[in-house]
Amino acid sequence: MSSEHQAEREEHVTRQVLESFAGSTTPRYREIMEALVRHSHALVREVRLTEQEWEQGIDFLTRCGQISDDRRQELILLSDVLGLSMLTIAANAPEEPTATESTVFGPFFVDGAPEVPFGGDIAQGASGQPCWVSGQVRGTDGSPVAGARLDVWEADDGGLYDVQHEGDVTQGRGHLFSDEQGGYGFWGVTPTPYPIPHDGPVGDLLAAAGRSPMRPAHLHVMVTAPGYHRLVTHAFVAGDDNQRGDAVFGVKESLVADFVEQPAGSPNPTGRRLDGAWRKVSFDIVLNPETRTDERRSIPSGRREGA
Amino acid sequence: MSSEHQAEREEHVTRQVLESFAGSTTPRYREIMEALVRHSHALVREVRLTEQEWEQGIDFLTRCGQISDDRRQELILLSDVLGLSMLTIAANAPEEPTATESTVFGPFFVDGAPEVPFGGDIAQGASGQPCWVSGQVRGTDGSPVAGARLDVWEADDGGLYDVQHEGDVTQGRGHLFSDEQGGYGFWGVTPTPYPIPHDGPVGDLLAAAGRSPMRPAHLHVMVTAPGYHRLVTHAFVAGDDNQRGDAVFGVKESLVADFVEQPAGSPNPTGRRLDGAWRKVSFDIVLNPETRTDERRSIPSGRREGA
Repeated sequence: MSSEHQAEREEHVTRQVLESFAGSTTPRYREIMEALVRHSHALVREVRLTEQEWEQGIDFLTRCGQISDDRRQELILLSDVLGLSMLTIAANAPEEPTATESTVFGPFFVDGAPEVPFGGDIAQGASGQPCWVSGQVRGTDGSPVAGARLDVWEADDGGLYDVQHEGDVTQGRGHLFSDEQGGYGFWGVTPTPYPIPHDGPVGDLLAAAGRSPMRPAHLHVMVTAPGYHRLVTHAFVAGDDNQRGDAVFGVKESLVADFVEQPAGSPNPTGRRLDGAWRKVSFDIVLNPETRTDERRSIPSGRREGA
Repeated sequence: MSSEHQAEREEHVTRQVLESFAGSTTPRYREIMEALVRHSHALVREVRLTEQEWEQGIDFLTRCGQISDDRRQELILLSDVLGLSMLTIAANAPEEPTATESTVFGPFFVDGAPEVPFGGDIAQGASGQPCWVSGQVRGTDGSPVAGARLDVWEADDGGLYDVQHEGDVTQGRGHLFSDEQGGYGFWGVTPTPYPIPHDGPVGDLLAAAGRSPMRPAHLHVMVTAPGYHRLVTHAFVAGDDNQRGDAVFGVKESLVADFVEQPAGSPNPTGRRLDGAWRKVSFDIVLNPETRTDERRSIPSGRREGA
């Protein structure tokens, strides 16, 4: 068969599939699905995907779904290691360069983590060096944002989040609200570098790619406040070599902060009794005001809730 | 922020991710993953994917994995309705136009279906009109292929495969071998049109796209024989209107066969006692000899078996 005939035969498949989305229930759905078809078909053609490779791909995605549960989200991890999470964040980034930059959400957020007051402790027994985290939440115009909700979560110094431990313990996560001056402050543990979960299909991908599963030390922060764009970000620990090869491409220079070591016995902001050295970090958060483009919402459902 | 700065920022993410695959364990793995990164990133940029749409995509793929089990394979169904299965088949098609054409594998094949002798019945109680299926397996040079293995599977006249019924019954599937002259013959039921499973995420996709879940009536046939390219195909029933809008784009003219109705009481090839009308179809199978390109196998593992 001529290669021209072969190309025509492949294009015929793609045309048929594109046409099948002509009756989509919304223009946005049609736009996304047609683009998905064009780009995914281009991939198959370009690499001349074999049937065995196709089977491996099906199997890989199936395993990603099946290893996921309420404590593990392998598809987010896949999106993260392919840079799709960071790219989506970049594509939706606030246009105001003075706002705090976003980074990956990651797979370890848990809804309903407990509230802590100003000066409270989110560690709740998570192992690690005590760390005082404080700062101010403000808008890009400099005005303090009172009552902003900060969700914070982090791994212990063994590199594990609470949900990666056996049992139902909640450690290293919580939420709090900024005060009248936008101020916030809480105790946690000093973040340490850790590998993303690599005992599943995404770990296999990294191994086949010769890539490290390590992430640099970081604290997750998500901030929501009425009238502002939701911010999902990290505070990274200055001086951490793992920032160069972050498995999920999440590092941004502007998010690297000094976690300053304080000697044992030095006074601390809440008069807490501490046995050894501790750290403190100042991490101000600048929110971008909400804009009309935030309203552009899209995918219609067919889909049911809670499935 | 200027759109130029924005584009540069997005390209920076893509470059970083592409570089991360430079140390892949095989050149083929690198080739596929780099192409996956380029095309998937191009998709996100082109449609300006929102964070909410990204979440819906993650959720969709997770549900596809989770609804899959040893009786249901939603990721294959997804590949089918996006035309990726047919495109992969087209890309790997034999170069010899006289060979029987391939079509989709589908999600309902089950390993280990029972062997039936020449003239045996694969229906095993599946509801439907009895149908005699016979033909010859030969190579593209016309020589008969003895001892070819035919795996055949089909839905009952309620549109369901055995694995879609409760319980562990095996009906409408089996395997048999061609005789010295390449001949084969077995009883099944006359195929009827049916909807692909549309109570899961793929059904939601079709609903949002305004697409029908129907497939035209067909019998699945997979043929393997030493020295020949494996053939995965269907016999479609002539005169079926559903051939125009096949949900999985599987129809090829050359695979449409006459399932000829025979009156009640007419003699049948095995002297089987039948109560009413039955059908018969002749479906010859022409296999393509194996070529060196079949050897091009690729994705290294990292991956464990049986996960």
